[in-house]
Amino acid sequence: MYKTIITPRIGDTDALRHINNTTLPIWFETARNPIFRIFNPTLELTYKKWNLELLRCDFNYLKPIYFGYDVEIRTYVSKIGKTSITLIHEAWQNGQLRANGSCTMLYFDFIRQNSVVIPDEIRENLSKHFITKEDLEKNNKKEMNENRKNNEAMDYIESDI
Amino acid sequence: MYKTIITPRIGDTDALRHINNTTLPIWFETARNPIFRIFNPTLELTYKKWNLELLRCDFNYLKPIYFGYDVEIRTYVSKIGKTSITLIHEAWQNGQLRANGSCTMLYFDFIRQNSVVIPDEIRENLSKHFITKEDLEKNNKKEMNENRKNNEAMDYIESDI
Amino acid sequence: MYKTIITPRIGDTDALRHINNTTLPIWFETARNPIFRIFNPTLELTYKKWNLELLRCDFNYLKPIYFGYDVEIRTYVSKIGKTSITLIHEAWQNGQLRANGSCTMLYFDFIRQNSVVIPDEIRENLSKHFITKEDLEKNNKKEMNENRKNNEAMDYIESDI
Amino acid sequence: MYKTIITPRIGDTDALRHINNTTLPIWFETARNPIFRIFNPTLELTYKKWNLELLRCDFNYLKPIYFGYDVEIRTYVSKIGKTSITLIHEAWQNGQLRANGSCTMLYFDFIRQNSVVIPDEIRENLSKHFITKEDLEKNNKKEMNENRKNNEAMDYIESDI
Repeated sequence: MYKTIITPRIGDTDALRHINNTTLPIWFETARNPIFRIFNPTLELTYKKWNLELLRCDFNYLKPIYFGYDVEIRTYVSKIGKTSITLIHEAWQNGQLRANGSCTMLYFDFIRQNSVVIPDEIRENLSKHFITKEDLEKNNKKEMNENRKNNEAMDYIESDI
Repeated sequence: MYKTIITPRIGDTDALRHINNTTLPIWFETARNPIFRIFNPTLELTYKKWNLELLRCDFNYLKPIYFGYDVEIRTYVSKIGKTSITLIHEAWQNGQLRANGSCTMLYFDFIRQNSVVIPDEIRENLSKHFITKEDLEKNNKKEMNENRKNNEAMDYIESDI
Repeated sequence: MYKTIITPRIGDTDALRHINNTTLPIWFETARNPIFRIFNPTLELTYKKWNLELLRCDFNYLKPIYFGYDVEIRTYVSKIGKTSITLIHEAWQNGQLRANGSCTMLYFDFIRQNSVVIPDEIRENLSKHFITKEDLEKNNKKEMNENRKNNEAMDYIESDI
Repeated sequence: MYKTIITPRIGDTDALRHINNTTLPIWFETARNPIFRIFNPTLELTYKKWNLELLRCDFNYLKPIYFGYDVEIRTYVSKIGKTSITLIHEAWQNGQLRANGSCTMLYFDFIRQNSVVIPDEIRENLSKHFITKEDLEKNNKKEMNENRKNNEAMDYIESDI
C-alpha cells in the first residue's frame, strides 16, 4: 500500500464548505505516481516512454472531507490482469475513511496503439501492494472502530449552517 | 436530454496531448447545472437551499478527446428512485462518443442531515430527460455509424508522436 | 474584443461561497482560444506548430463572482510589441466588472527555442481587438453607471452569513 | 520563509509537456496555508472566522516546470501594511527558480464587510518570514550559481520534440 499525504487548499472546497467531488480524481491521480514509477521509472511523459492508459474509474463519496486537516490517500492493487491492472484508492481524514474508488489502466504501447502483456518484473512489484477487497474492508472496519473514540470532536464545520 | 457545449482549454490537456482524465468530472459537473436547477431554481448554494448530495460517480474513457474542437456533453436521467436519481453523461467530439459515465445523487436536507422523498413535480420534470440504457446505446450506435463517413480525417493529433 | 461566456460550476466556488481565485486564470485561458487561433488556426498543440509562450500574468479581484449566473469574459489586445503581445481580460457578471487582469505572451519557436518577430498579417488581425487602457476604463465606467440601476438586487448571496 | 513540497501530477501538465500556467496559482494557494494559519489558527472557512481577502496576484513564468520531479514552493512576506500584506511565492525545481509571483491580501471582516488593522501579535509572527526583494534576489542569484554545476543534465524533456 502506498500512502500519499495531501494538504487540502481553499480552492478544493466548494460553497457547501467541504471538498468538492471533482477534487478527488485529482488527488487520486497524484497518488498513482508511485504506481506509474513501477511501469516507467523516469516518469517520462512521451509516447515513446509512457505506457499506461486509463480505461475507467469510479468514486464513492462516503463522508464530507474538510479543509484544515491533511488527507491520507492509500493506494492498493486489487487486480493484476494480463494487460491491465485495477487500483483501489481511499481518502482518510481524521481517522475516518471519507471516500474511495477504483480505476483500471491498460498497459499500452502509445506508438503502435495496442495493449501489451505486463512483464513479470512489473507484476512482482505490483503484487507487493495487492489486497483483496474483502481483506481491505475487514481491516478498515477494525481501524475505524479503534479510531472512533478519538475523533468525535474533530469535524468542527458540521455544525456550521 | 440536456446539451452543454464545452470549449476545451490548453490546461485541460496533459503531456500525452489529449484531455486529462480529471477534466471529465469537471465538465460533467458543469453539465449538471440544468438538473440542479430543476431541484433548486435559484441555484443558491447554501445549506438552507441546496438539496442534492453526490453519492457516487464513474467514468469510462473510450477514445481520446482533443484540444481544438468543441465537446458536447449530453446529460440523461437513467433512474428516478424514491430519494435519489442517477444521471448518464456523455462526451461527444467530432461526431464520436469519446467518454461517458454516470452519477447518483441523493435528495438531501443539509440542515437536518437526512434524505427526502423527491416531490412529484420534480419527478415529472426529470422524467422528460429519462432514457433507458438500452435505448441510449441503440441510438448512439446508429448515430456513430452515420457520422463515421464524415469524421475520419478530423483527429489530426493521433499521428503526432 | 472577444466575448467568451462561462457558466460557473459548483467546484469553481470555495467555502467562502464565491468563485475561488484560482478559477480566474482557468477562465482567462479559455478566453484566449480565439487569440491562439489568430496565431495558429488549427490550434495544434505541438512543438512544430504552437508558437506562443506565456511570460507573465496578473489578476485583480474587484468584487466577488457567484455561482448561478453566467460570466462574460472580455478579451482585448492592449499592446502589440515586436515579438510579444499583451492582453487584457475582464470578468463581468450581472452587469458589473468583477475581476480583470493582463498577460504577456511571447511569439516563440519551440523547436529553435527563440522568440520570433510577429508577422504583419497576425499584427493586423490583432489590431482589430486593440484598445488603450484609458479608453477601456472610460467605457467601463460608463457601462457600469448605466447598469447600476438594474442590478442592485441580483447578488443574493452577499447576505448569507 | 515557508517551504511547501508539491509533487506534480500528470494533469498539471499540458500538451506542450510542461506544467500548465494555471497550475501555479493552485500551488501558490496551497503554499499560503501556513500564512492563513497565522491569521486563523483553526483554518475555519466561515464568514465568522475567515479574515483574509485576496486583492491581487501576479505570476512570472521564468523556465518550464516538468512532471516527474518535486517542486519546492518558498513563501516570503514582502510587505506588512496597516490592513494588508504582500507575499512572494517562488517555485523551485531541480535547484532552479522556475517561476515566482506575489499576492496582496486584505485583513477583512466578512460579516461587517470592511478591512481591519492587523493586530501586533500577527504582525510579529509575519515579520519572521519577511524579506526585502533585494535580499531575496541576491540570495537566489547566489544559490542558482552554486546549483548550476549539478543540474545541467536533469531536464530530460527539453530535447523531446
